[in-house]
Parts: sequence; C-alpha cells; structure tokens
Amino acid sequence: MLADLLKQDDASASEGFDFYSDNAAGVHPRILEALVACNRGFVPPYGMERFTRRIDSAFSEVFERECFVFPVPTGTAANGLALGALAPPHGLIFAHRNAHIVTTECGAPEFFTLGARLALLESPHNKLAASTFESALHGHARRTVHQLLPAVVSLTQATERGTVYALEEIAAISSLAHAAGLKVQMDGARFANAMVSLDATPAEMSWKAGVDAVSFGATKNGTMNADAVVLFDEGLAEKARFIHKRAGFLHSKMRFMSAQLLAYLEDGLWIANARAANANAERLAAALASVKGVELNDPVQANELFPRLPARFRRRLKSEGVHLRDWPDATGNLFRIVTSYCDGESRIGAFEKVCREFGGGEANATRSGE
Amino acid sequence: MLADLLKQDDASASEGFDFYSDNAAGVHPRILEALVACNRGFVPPYGMERFTRRIDSAFSEVFERECFVFPVPTGTAANGLALGALAPPHGLIFAHRNAHIVTTECGAPEFFTLGARLALLESPHNKLAASTFESALHGHARRTVHQLLPAVVSLTQATERGTVYALEEIAAISSLAHAAGLKVQMDGARFANAMVSLDATPAEMSWKAGVDAVSFGATKNGTMNADAVVLFDEGLAEKARFIHKRAGFLHSKMRFMSAQLLAYLEDGLWIANARAANANAERLAAALASVKGVELNDPVQANELFPRLPARFRRRLKSEGVHLRDWPDATGNLFRIVTSYCDGESRIGAFEKVCREFGGGEANATRSGE
Amino acid sequence: MLADLLKQDDASASEGFDFYSDNAAGVHPRILEALVACNRGFVPPYGMERFTRRIDSAFSEVFERECFVFPVPTGTAANGLALGALAPPHGLIFAHRNAHIVTTECGAPEFFTLGARLALLESPHNKLAASTFESALHGHARRTVHQLLPAVVSLTQATERGTVYALEEIAAISSLAHAAGLKVQMDGARFANAMVSLDATPAEMSWKAGVDAVSFGATKNGTMNADAVVLFDEGLAEKARFIHKRAGFLHSKMRFMSAQLLAYLEDGLWIANARAANANAERLAAALASVKGVELNDPVQANELFPRLPARFRRRLKSEGVHLRDWPDATGNLFRIVTSYCDGESRIGAFEKVCREFGGGEANATRSGE
Amino acid sequence: MLADLLKQDDASASEGFDFYSDNAAGVHPRILEALVACNRGFVPPYGMERFTRRIDSAFSEVFERECFVFPVPTGTAANGLALGALAPPHGLIFAHRNAHIVTTECGAPEFFTLGARLALLESPHNKLAASTFESALHGHARRTVHQLLPAVVSLTQATERGTVYALEEIAAISSLAHAAGLKVQMDGARFANAMVSLDATPAEMSWKAGVDAVSFGATKNGTMNADAVVLFDEGLAEKARFIHKRAGFLHSKMRFMSAQLLAYLEDGLWIANARAANANAERLAAALASVKGVELNDPVQANELFPRLPARFRRRLKSEGVHLRDWPDATGNLFRIVTSYCDGESRIGAFEKVCREFGGGEANATRSGE
Repeated sequence: MLADLLKQDDASASEGFDFYSDNAAGVHPRILEALVACNRGFVPPYGMERFTRRIDSAFSEVFERECFVFPVPTGTAANGLALGALAPPHGLIFAHRNAHIVTTECGAPEFFTLGARLALLESPHNKLAASTFESALHGHARRTVHQLLPAVVSLTQATERGTVYALEEIAAISSLAHAAGLKVQMDGARFANAMVSLDATPAEMSWKAGVDAVSFGATKNGTMNADAVVLFDEGLAEKARFIHKRAGFLHSKMRFMSAQLLAYLEDGLWIANARAANANAERLAAALASVKGVELNDPVQANELFPRLPARFRRRLKSEGVHLRDWPDATGNLFRIVTSYCDGESRIGAFEKVCREFGGGEANATRSGE
Repeated sequence: MLADLLKQDDASASEGFDFYSDNAAGVHPRILEALVACNRGFVPPYGMERFTRRIDSAFSEVFERECFVFPVPTGTAANGLALGALAPPHGLIFAHRNAHIVTTECGAPEFFTLGARLALLESPHNKLAASTFESALHGHARRTVHQLLPAVVSLTQATERGTVYALEEIAAISSLAHAAGLKVQMDGARFANAMVSLDATPAEMSWKAGVDAVSFGATKNGTMNADAVVLFDEGLAEKARFIHKRAGFLHSKMRFMSAQLLAYLEDGLWIANARAANANAERLAAALASVKGVELNDPVQANELFPRLPARFRRRLKSEGVHLRDWPDATGNLFRIVTSYCDGESRIGAFEKVCREFGGGEANATRSGE
Repeated sequence: MLADLLKQDDASASEGFDFYSDNAAGVHPRILEALVACNRGFVPPYGMERFTRRIDSAFSEVFERECFVFPVPTGTAANGLALGALAPPHGLIFAHRNAHIVTTECGAPEFFTLGARLALLESPHNKLAASTFESALHGHARRTVHQLLPAVVSLTQATERGTVYALEEIAAISSLAHAAGLKVQMDGARFANAMVSLDATPAEMSWKAGVDAVSFGATKNGTMNADAVVLFDEGLAEKARFIHKRAGFLHSKMRFMSAQLLAYLEDGLWIANARAANANAERLAAALASVKGVELNDPVQANELFPRLPARFRRRLKSEGVHLRDWPDATGNLFRIVTSYCDGESRIGAFEKVCREFGGGEANATRSGE
Repeated sequence: MLADLLKQDDASASEGFDFYSDNAAGVHPRILEALVACNRGFVPPYGMERFTRRIDSAFSEVFERECFVFPVPTGTAANGLALGALAPPHGLIFAHRNAHIVTTECGAPEFFTLGARLALLESPHNKLAASTFESALHGHARRTVHQLLPAVVSLTQATERGTVYALEEIAAISSLAHAAGLKVQMDGARFANAMVSLDATPAEMSWKAGVDAVSFGATKNGTMNADAVVLFDEGLAEKARFIHKRAGFLHSKMRFMSAQLLAYLEDGLWIANARAANANAERLAAALASVKGVELNDPVQANELFPRLPARFRRRLKSEGVHLRDWPDATGNLFRIVTSYCDGESRIGAFEKVCREFGGGEANATRSGE
C-alpha cells in the first residue's frame, strides 16, 4: 500500500499549493539523521533515557535559565498543554481574535483547561496592541464572582499574519498582565522565525520580556513531529507534568522526540532554518514590490506574506504554473504565501521571474500594509 | 548536544534492563525507510495528503470492514481517544483492576471522557472473566439517576500479564455488554502479539467478536510513534474526529504518522514482527522450564513472561550479566520479561545458555500459572 | 443571629436600590403557602413523591406537549443544564454578546458542557437578529475538524435589555438553526414577562417556534428558589437526567422545589405576576415619557426599562429618595429599572409623582430607542 | 394541580416507608418561620444582603475559627464543591468504597473535579481505618507521572452505616494525609448527629482534627434545601467561590438559603434536632435488643440502625403496619432504619410496642455488630 503511494506525487499539489504552508515542507535531513542515529539498541522508555534526560538542560542553555521542557507532537498540543498549566477552569484567556488557538485548534484551549474561556480582542495585523489589552483588562477589572477570572494573555509570535511583536511590545503586555495577576503564554509555532527577525536571543524574546510559557514550535521549521512547551517555573511544570502524561503526549519511545529537538537546537540548525525561510520571504516580498497593483496587506516580518493581487497578475501566475493559496477575506483578492527553510532556489527563482516579467510595480508596495 | 549522546550507551541499561519492555526496542528498519522515503517535496498538511487519505482504506482491507482510523502518538492517546468517543462524561467503564488504562495512564480515561469513572474488576491473570463482568453488570442493573451509566467495557489484548483472550471469551463479554447497552473497547497495545497467538484475523479478534473500538498498538511492535484508534461506526468516528483534533493529535506533517502505519501493515511486517516477539517468548519460557524452582505466574501466550525465580538462580543471572526487571509483588520473587521483534539471537541465546547450565528444572513449570 | 437581622432593614437598600432587580423581590405568598402546606409528614426523597411525579404532566398541560422537566435552584443552573444537554464538549454556542449566559454566569456554559465555546454576536437591543445569526452560521459553514461544531443558538427571552423576540423572530432563528443541525435554547429567566408581552401561549413561544430547550425562570417572578429546564425530547432528557443529578440539583427534599413550581403554575399565578410586573413597567415608561430630556435606550417590552436620564432629573430623583441603579455605559447617564410582581402601588405612585412634578417631557420619548 | 395533591397522602408511603430516611422528613417549623420572616421587602440579590453577609461570621462563631461558607442546595452539591476545591483534575481521592460520594452521587466528584479519580478502600462498618488508608497511601507512594496524584481523603461522618469516627480516628487519618500532602474532606451530611454522638464541638470534629473542608449537612436535620461547604483556608475559598457560582449554586434570592442556615444554627436548633434523632435511634436499638434473633449489623452511633431481622419478626412488623426498608445485601435479611428529629412519639412508641410484644430477645444484641 505504501510502495504505490511513494511512487506517486501528491494529487492536490497542483491547486493553490505553492508556498501553501511551512507545514507542507518535509523534515530536515539532519533531523532524519538524528532519528536514524538514535535508533540503536534498547533504551528505557517514557523518557527515562539519556536523550530526554538531556532536554531540560539543553533548553536551559539555549534560554539562559532553568527550563522545564515537555516535548509534544503538535503546536495544538503545545498550546493546549501550556494553557492547561497556566489557566484554571474558571479562567479567562485573552487572545487576538484571529489567533491560531482561537480559529484553528478546535477548542483545544477549552479542552486542556477544562472549561476556560477565550476573550477575543482585535488590533491590526493580528498583533495584540498593549493598549487594546489594557482596555480589555480594565473592562474585566470589576471582578465579581459572576465573571470568569482573568488568567492568561496569549501572544502568537510570529502572528498568523506574519508580523512580529517587538521585544518592548511583548514586555509592555507582560507588564500589564503580571500587574493584574495574569500569566503570559507565547504561541511560538514560528518562534525561530520571529526571533531571527528581531535578532533577539531566546531569553530576550521569552522570560526576559515576561513570558511565562512558550509553545516552542519546531515542526514548521524542520522537525518531523516534535514541538515543546518550555516553562520557567517549577510549580507550573509540576502541573504540566500530569497533563502531559494524561493527555497521551509522553511517548513510549520518547528518545525519538527528544533526538529531534536536540538535533534541532544543535549547532544552530533551528536558527539557520529560520533565517533561510525569512530570507525567502524577503525575496518574494521584493519581487512582489516590483509588480504593479500588488499591495501587501501586512508588513512582512517573518516567513509569511499576505499580498493583495490584481486579477491580471493572478492569471499570469496561474498560467506560469504558480498556484497560490487564497485567504478568506471579503475582497477576494487576498493571498497567503508561506516560505520555509527548504523552498529551494528553483521555486523562489521561478516566482521572482514571473514578477519581474510582469513588472510595473512600485518600490513602496511593501509599506502599504503598515 | 546530541552528538555526544549518540556516542554514549545508555547508563541505565545496566540495571534491570534485559527484556525490560518492548517499548525499549527501537524502530524497525522498514519503518525508518518509509519515513525517509516519504520525506520528499511539499504535501498538504494535517492529513490531507495521499498517505493519510489511504489510511482508512488500508485498515479496511486489513480488518475486512469499513474502518475509521485515527493515528495517535501513544497507546495512552489511543485509549483516551477511544474511550472519549465511546463513553459519556457520566459513563461507567468496566476494566480489570490491573489494566494499563487503570494503573499507568495517569487518568487519561477520565481526562478524555471528561469525568467518566472506571469500575474495577478482578479475575485471574489480568483477564476479565465473563462471569465476573456479568456479576458487575448485574450489580449495576438497578440504574437510577444516582449511579453512573454503565457505558463501556475495556479489554486489554494481550493483557498486562501476557495472557490472551480467546475469541469466544471476547465474544462472551461483548455479548453481555451489548445486551446491556454498553460498548466494547479493546486496548490492543499488543494487538498483533495476541492475534498471532490466537492465529486469528484482525476481523475475528475485533468486530466479529463484538469489539466496537480498537486501540491498535504498533509502537511496541516496530513503529516509532504511531498507534491508531480503529472504529467501525461512522457516528463514533464523527465524535472521535473532534476529540482527535482538539487533543492535539492531528499532526501537521501527518504523512510521517500515516507512512509508519502503512509500512507497518505492508507485506505483513506487523505480523512477522509479532511472530518473532512471541517466538522469543516461547524460547525463554522453554528455557526457564528447565530451571529447577522456576514457576511461571501466568501462562505465556504472547510476548511477556512473569516468572518467579528462586534466589540462587537470580544470583546466577546477575553474575552472567542478565539483569531482569522485578515486578511489584508481595513475594519479591516475581519478574517481568518482555520480548520484542528485535531481541536478537545473541540475547535470547545467552539467556538460554544460563538456564541450560543452571539446569535442574521440570517440564511442567510452564503450567504452574494456569 | 437571625433574630437580630430580622429586626433590621437591609443597609444597602438605600443606595441605587429602587427597582434594582426582580431578584430583589421576595416570595409570593401563595408560593410560601405551598411550602408550608406540603410540609406534612414523611414522603419519599429525591423526587419520588407525588409533587415531583406531577411535574412533567403539569408542564405538559401548560406547554400542550409532552415535557421533561428538571427543577433547578437558579437560572444559571437552568442554562447550564440545558446547554449541557444540547451541546457536546466540542460544540459552538451562538449567543448575543450581552446575553446573561455570556456576561454574568462565570462560565457556567463551559462548565456544564465541559468545554464548549460561546460564539458572540451583536445586534441592537440585545436581540439577536436572524440575519446576524445567518451570517455567523455562514462564517462557520466550512466545517473542518479545525473548528468547533456549531451546536446551539441561545436566545434570551425577554432579553437583558427588556426587549422581546416576536414569535416570528424566534421561528426565523430556529429555522436557520435546525437547517444547519443546531438546537435552540431559550434562556427564559423572564419567560412569563415575555409571554405576556406577546400575548402568546407557552407552546407558541417555545416548541411551536422551534425551541428545543427552555430555561423556565420562575424565581424572578415569585418563587423562592425554583426554576426549571423544560425539554421536549426524551433523548435530551435522558442526558439531562444524569447531569441534573451529578451537578447536585436533585434535592433530597424535592417536594419543596416541585411544590413551588406547581403553585407557580396553578390558577395562572405566574401569568398574573408577569402581567403585574409588565404593567408596572408600562406605568413607569409612561411617567418617564412626560419628563423632558429622558430617552429610553431600548423599547420597553417586558418588565425592564433602560432610560437615559438628564443630570437635573437624576438629582431630583435622589432628593426625593428614589435611588435608581446606573448601568455600565460609556455615557454615564444610562440607568436600569426592573419592575416586579410586587412593587406596590406606593413605589410606583411615588415614582410617577416625581416625574409628573418634574415634567416637561414629550410623548414620543418611549420611541427613541427603537 | 397542587391543591389536589395537598389533599392526598403519598401513595408510596405504604411500602417500606417507615424510618425510610431522614430526607423523608419535612422542614422544622423554626426554619419555615425564618423563611416567612425574611420574606419582607426588597433586598440585594446574589447574597449581597445582610443574611448572607452574616453567614461566614455565624459559622466562624460556631466553629471557633475563621470560616468561608458556601450555601448549597444538596449534599451532593456540597461534596462536589468541596472536592472540586480540594482536588486537581489529575488528583486521586481516597474514600471508603461504600461512601455516599462513591455510590449515590452519579459521579459528582468526577464532575466537580473535572476528572479526578476515586480510590476505593474497604474497612468494617463503612469507617475507613487509619491503617487501611496508610497502606493505600503506601501503595501510591512511588509517585511517577504515570499515576494520578494522591490529593484528598474523604471521610463520611456519620458513615452510611450509622457509625461515627472518634476524634482520634479522624486525627490519625488527617495526620497521615497531611504528611503525604493530601487534604481531608468530611462528608458531614449527618455532621450534627455525629457531633452529638461524640459530645464534641464543631471545632473538635473538624479543623482541630485536621479536616480541611466540611460538607455541612443541614437538610436531613431540619432545613428545607440548605447545606453548606465550610472551608478554613482563604486560598481554597477563592477557588470554591468560582465553582460555586459557575455550578449554579449562587441563588439570586440567597437570603432564603442563608436564613435557613442561620435559623438552623440559632439557639442550638441543629444540636437539639440531632439529639432527638439520635435518641430515637437509641430507643429503637433498645427495643430491637429485646427481640430474639435480631442482630445489629453495625454499632448504632448516630441516627441509623442496620438490623438483621428474622423472617418471623419481619412478618409481624408488616402485619402491624410497620414497613421497613430492606437494604441490599447478600443475605436478604438486612434492613435500614433512619430516625429523624421529628419521628414523633407515636411512631417510636408503636415500634417499641411491636418489639416488646414479639419479645424473646437478648440484651447483648446491640453488641453483635461491633
């Protein structure tokens, strides 16, 4: 059954599939090598082996602070586990209304918290503005028992619109949150892309800016099925430990999760990958800037672009075999492009060529979304 | 960080680590090959690619009936998801008191059902006797609103004591369950080992015997981190689909889960692996039968042995470098041995040699546990 | 301890306390008499006595259809139980953003559904417009497993702004809901007030208009601590029965719950009470219409008024000893007035007198909010 | 509908209904008077009035320590709320296997804790022996993440077999619990009966003996529908406050709950009632002791008797119109008798007369159960 499939190409790859998502990419060769290399002999199950026992210290080195790390198979798992550790069932979790935890995780926050509620906020480019959050906090300030308890604010870094919170923006929100007794969770499905974009250290973009829990994405950036929740507090870790097990995330052959994460961190693979993805996004943005009538709906700060494309250019792309994914929007002309660490020169180059040949754009197109 | 670890052997491998668990084994080469082979190009994420779209039909062929299949990373995930689909929050789940879902999953059944209760039953060799279940059902027959609703009976096949339910035994329990309006879940963490032991087909050991949901274990028998929930009813699948996503089990790079399962089923790899593991168990049982004073606490029917070892023999094993895992028990002389598909002739042979040289056993030792 | 308190008046009664809420009212004498009358002898506990066994048929007569009725102590309990019976944990519940279940029940919907989510909608006067609901349904039409399952729409009748859904408005929403596979819940904390306002029958305002579950409020309208969930479907009732018990709502001395509800329904007490409360609201609305500068923010259709009061008139009210409750609003001049079945001629008359003496209003003031 | 019912007697009162349960009793006149007395004027809803604001201090006086009190409508509600405040979702709650929270609350502990598990223990007369609890704790001492976290031990005082924990017995269990990091919950559905039996103070039987949370029963002993959770720790109270509201227990007309509890405590009504009930039980026990062949299955220490009655005596009782409730038991000759504060001399006297006339008993019958 598998043999036949391996011979085929994916049928759906033809429609709307170029730069569809960084999830569509495969596994980085060094991650695969790690999996093969650690497949040697018998080792204790359930994370009692040397790879998993190294995980906390490996992340602690990278984050420059004691970390408590929980490998998980998906970003939804990471966010669910993190929020489950941070929020009580009667908690209120503030998030941007377009955050991934709101729109595309089928209620994982409610499932893992066992009944908390999301309070949805809106601000431009999917980035929660500190002032918006402050107003929302103020609106929930009269805490009676009739309302849920404000408990967590969740930030997506980079956001679902490819924008990135500056370090001061994170710190401003964290500061408001902590003053009001809330915790700060960062959905870092694209943690590395944001970090590279900011030229920041992991520490600067997390605990130094007040973040209490990081959903540390790695799968979009090169691993096979290994993300992690990174906590900085032992009490939170104690709670997370139980949720992690009872939710079915403690792999029996855990070495294959931990090895992915160690290989991901080792020698800066994760940073190199994120740099490559971001550089590809910059190249595509520059190419689009040369196309007349193209506007970028949001600033390009990580590895995602949300261009508005005129009809004639859309037709040209199609005729050249470039099938972009359209993105739900009232206008019907919005598209999403996600670059990855492994797009390959040929795909990027082909896209640039179409843009160049279509031509007629203006240099300031990239600014229009700001 | 990983490079150094790969050079080491696992430190804990020395103490109580021979035949520690089938979870301690690595990944079968053909599974690893499948992972490498499907790591090609960009494919749709979240299971929309051709590998995952093949999963239902692949299992349907194997189970000779339409199947609805949910790949999950662990056995705990499989059991949780299956029970969550079968039992309402106010449901009662009957299980043997030593079942894995009871003793070692940190309350996953309660987590995934959102509050159901386990009703614990006891019968010999961890096998729930139909008569015991019948009595328990009878004890809950007066269904008032003051008691939880009997909803599911869970069977572990093979059991945690390495015993195997005969097809008629499963059918007898299913028949009682269905007559009383309950569903039947099978924790098949060692599904293949039991099936091979019974020389049964997947269909015979599941839906033909009345099983409504199978936790289809594969990780202990050769995959890296891919098990599956197999359902035979679309209504149950509809519910499971939501739990599967919101619990964080829908991998973004799902092809790497599905490819493992397809490779596992392909060309009977799973059956060959289970046969190898069971054959190893038989050889160890035969070897132990020749040792004076050794008793098997439970019949050896799959790939686990629970021998009682006299002190002198234990010392001999140790001096020969064989470190078995002792098993919690009042007597202090009970051990657990789990064989796997990849034990290797040298390990099995070495164990046989120690037994042979120690000698003095009787041929009927294997019967003592029955 | 009680004796002293009984001698006092309530200290807080002086500030913002006139027409504060219908919850501030006491128990109707006929309800109290029923409690006293059924306090005779020993009867079976947990609802097995004749009062509770009469409940289903009593409501069935009133609603002209077989009803399954669950007495509960509060409106929050009623809404929680109803939603718990209607929505799965992965369900989405549509409601107006200012609905009581959203703003003032501390997450009871999430608690009783074990993790469902509220989808908040907005339309004027707290009344969910069918077109708004239709758009929202449309927005959730692409049902993938990444989103929660649209499961219930909840209507508050009368709304928290004292407005009332016309029968056709309920039917329009129900029709959309049912076509999309959703159930309709009615938060009828002020069911009687709305019904009297519409001059409708219980049947017309519930199942005939497509409502699947009614939170039948009675406490605001004369009982002590007895509301009810009214269901029309046995399958839903079966689920509700378990939640009702495990949530602690099945009173041991259930006769005292059922007797309240029976007395409430008997001889149309509930309708008479609602008529009295609504009539009081009309009188106050008429009185305010005569005051210059007063505007009604929302049409007065049941027993609540939301007037905007000019500063001079507010001062006059205060100096006359009328202390109205201000209502959170950006303008600072919005007030809430809730009339009840037992306001008494003196309170109403006094209010009218202040208005009349202040004077200068126009007749069309009551229309301003429409 | 009510009027007719009030004229009738309860039909089921004839079968097995004498001394059926203290729940079958009505409301004490002084409680009813309190309800009538506080039904005066308009007061703030949701517990903001003077009666509810007095509750904490009233209990604090009675318990000689700062109390945080949550009025609830049922014992199931009290236990659920208390356990929800004490145990995390991944917690393990130790209880006697016949405890009310185990057998007759439809999974309320699981519902309110959102997924905790009951660990069932057995010891004579439904009283959890400290040694049994100690063994169980020891069995869960190897705390890995694969097991739930031991979190609470629940004691029923008086037990479901009418036996009473001595103060030292409570203290011994509490001491073990606290040493292992667990909390102690007391299901005091018959708190007063036990307290009177021990001649102890509320403080001695609760926090002085190490109890962290009391489900303070009042309904069985005279109120209409008002029990309470009594906590001694502000942190626990903070959590309980949210559960109390979102579970629907915060009555809008809360004064009628609080007034019941205040009247119950006032002038020792609760103690007088419990003394009356216990005294009735003693008289019945003495009467039974005179009947040949009667054995008491459990010592009579509060207001319940569990006699084993010979067939001839059962027939005599029936012919004299005394219909006792049989109690599930393999022997078929076990009965349950529950006395209440209001049994009345005639019922007690009639029972004594039947016993006296049947005669032939021995004085030591009451000892047989010890």
